Amino acid sequence: MTEPGSFGALGPGARVGVVGAGQLGRMLALAGARLGLHSVVFANSPDEPAIEVCGAHVIGDYADEAALARFADQVDVVTYEFENIPAGAAEFLAARLPVRPGPQVLAITQDRLREKNFIAGLGLDVAPYVAVEDPGALARAVGQIGRPSILKTRRFGYDGKGQVLIREGGDLASAFRSLGGQSAILEGFVQFKAEISVVAARGLNGEFVAYDVCQNVHEHHILATTSVPADIAPSLARRAQEMARTIAEALDYVGVIAVEMFLVETAGGNTLLVNEVAPRVHNSGHWTLDGAATSQFEQHLRAICGFPLGSARRLGRVEMRNLIGDDILRWREILAEPDACLHLYGKAESRSGRKMGHVTRFLP
Amino acid sequence: MTEPGSFGALGPGARVGVVGAGQLGRMLALAGARLGLHSVVFANSPDEPAIEVCGAHVIGDYADEAALARFADQVDVVTYEFENIPAGAAEFLAARLPVRPGPQVLAITQDRLREKNFIAGLGLDVAPYVAVEDPGALARAVGQIGRPSILKTRRFGYDGKGQVLIREGGDLASAFRSLGGQSAILEGFVQFKAEISVVAARGLNGEFVAYDVCQNVHEHHILATTSVPADIAPSLARRAQEMARTIAEALDYVGVIAVEMFLVETAGGNTLLVNEVAPRVHNSGHWTLDGAATSQFEQHLRAICGFPLGSARRLGRVEMRNLIGDDILRWREILAEPDACLHLYGKAESRSGRKMGHVTRFLP
Repeated sequence: MTEPGSFGALGPGARVGVVGAGQLGRMLALAGARLGLHSVVFANSPDEPAIEVCGAHVIGDYADEAALARFADQVDVVTYEFENIPAGAAEFLAARLPVRPGPQVLAITQDRLREKNFIAGLGLDVAPYVAVEDPGALARAVGQIGRPSILKTRRFGYDGKGQVLIREGGDLASAFRSLGGQSAILEGFVQFKAEISVVAARGLNGEFVAYDVCQNVHEHHILATTSVPADIAPSLARRAQEMARTIAEALDYVGVIAVEMFLVETAGGNTLLVNEVAPRVHNSGHWTLDGAATSQFEQHLRAICGFPLGSARRLGRVEMRNLIGDDILRWREILAEPDACLHLYGKAESRSGRKMGHVTRFLP
Repeated sequence: MTEPGSFGALGPGARVGVVGAGQLGRMLALAGARLGLHSVVFANSPDEPAIEVCGAHVIGDYADEAALARFADQVDVVTYEFENIPAGAAEFLAARLPVRPGPQVLAITQDRLREKNFIAGLGLDVAPYVAVEDPGALARAVGQIGRPSILKTRRFGYDGKGQVLIREGGDLASAFRSLGGQSAILEGFVQFKAEISVVAARGLNGEFVAYDVCQNVHEHHILATTSVPADIAPSLARRAQEMARTIAEALDYVGVIAVEMFLVETAGGNTLLVNEVAPRVHNSGHWTLDGAATSQFEQHLRAICGFPLGSARRLGRVEMRNLIGDDILRWREILAEPDACLHLYGKAESRSGRKMGHVTRFLP
């Protein structure tokens, strides 16, 4: 067994810095409290939901080095709840203390083009893609990839933001302008049989543990439900987990990683295309709070602190459903269901499209 | 279904005041955060473990009405993590907002004599007992009850504190003095076959839900392990749950209640004696965090907020073991066990006899 102190391992009582203070940071802090860890979040504003469950927080902008230094002074290790931390902030922190997963992971996963190149370079399948720097390049890319296809900004896209569908007959110049003229990539539109994700963890010593493969349904570009296990052949599920492992190892990853994939039918049979890598705990892993022996949040903390990873054993057939906007009004009805576990994020205001909570249901 | 607002019910976003800020208050606050509730703890000192996971806290003495008033102003409902709140403090709070379970419950359970009288008055069995106000009364009581027997202070006893064993030949006057000359009761020493407890909840509308009966082992007067289900006949387990229900209903109880009982063999067969009623979440219910569909902490909050109670369904055979003092040094070994769930309370200092955490194990 790894001894405390080796590999930069920490102990109970360690102070964990989490950059970002939304619901993921909140659930990380709650899982940390259970293990006796002390969480400090770096928040952009005082009303973010993770703050109230942490013993300490720093409010600042990611460009504010004084705030980042105050944050670094209070913690033993840094992690993050989302991948769009400016590279400068990550490097500033990494010069002072361990940042896990490391800045090399952010550099790749923040940039759709670098990420696709990286994954394709590992010999894994991705949807066809071409870099697009200007409207002229877009025209050439559409010539190569065809329509329908999707133009996506290289950076800062999430939940369908920063992307536009290129349909038959649509105007390319206005599509490019609609994304603000940023560097982008054009991706082939994938007719998938299923969307799946692998949520897994890699420890400080290289140990790798994957949860059962999740099957996801998005509505309006936002995750609506995750069902586990995914309704796919066991051999495909194992292949998906192996692909996630290949990616995690190539990234020298530490922490929980989520790899979103498309299952597509090709002439040669079923193929898995990697869609996106999330270097963090992931919405499609929320079911693990109720449905697995170790939650993805605890697992992430175990990994970044150098603790042994926990069991990913699934406790039943589960479905996780996001509560978005006014879905939260059904809270009482959900609490009355005997096999539903309700999670609310403590957000003061329900807005359309805002993730307010989720519910995990055990299926017969 | 009960509508929000009826029976004084609250909603998500409600502010829950918890008097006491030890590990029970901490686990209540963590469960509350999961439901979107905002917890405020009333602590006696700034280093108590619940404080760091709450958005707000008040530090004060229970006699400090200004502090109690500040606390009351910040919350919608008050509950407590232990039963030894001075009656004055409970009444001060109850005059301002709902206190659940109510002060009438505290008045009974704070006083061993009143509690025994109350339980016996319900027709339930208890060990033989006699009130003892002075050394002369102790001599008469020993004449009645015999030896061995146990002299216990009427108030403020826990984990074996405030009690002394009356052995054959022991000096009665010094035994009485060793408890500080307080009002006491003498109880017959019970040769039990098993110690069990029923952890259950009663809702604001009278709904009652009991967890499976727990079997407890104490060491040095402190709970060491809880195994669930208890190794007793199903009819006895049902009887134990019915006894807890009888007590909860007679108290017009709201929240989680724990009833500790002894299983004793008598000429007439097996009998259950009520040992103690804890008007709060209970150490023997910690297994529910990992081993039940709804934890006792969430269940308590559901009850006091007027939400529907959750399912008490057990997820497997479990054993909970307290980590006391230096037991916590085994944290890494426990984390490496595939079927162990570790909970640490974030206490800075490990002292002999101090509850530092617990571990729940799933048994085959």
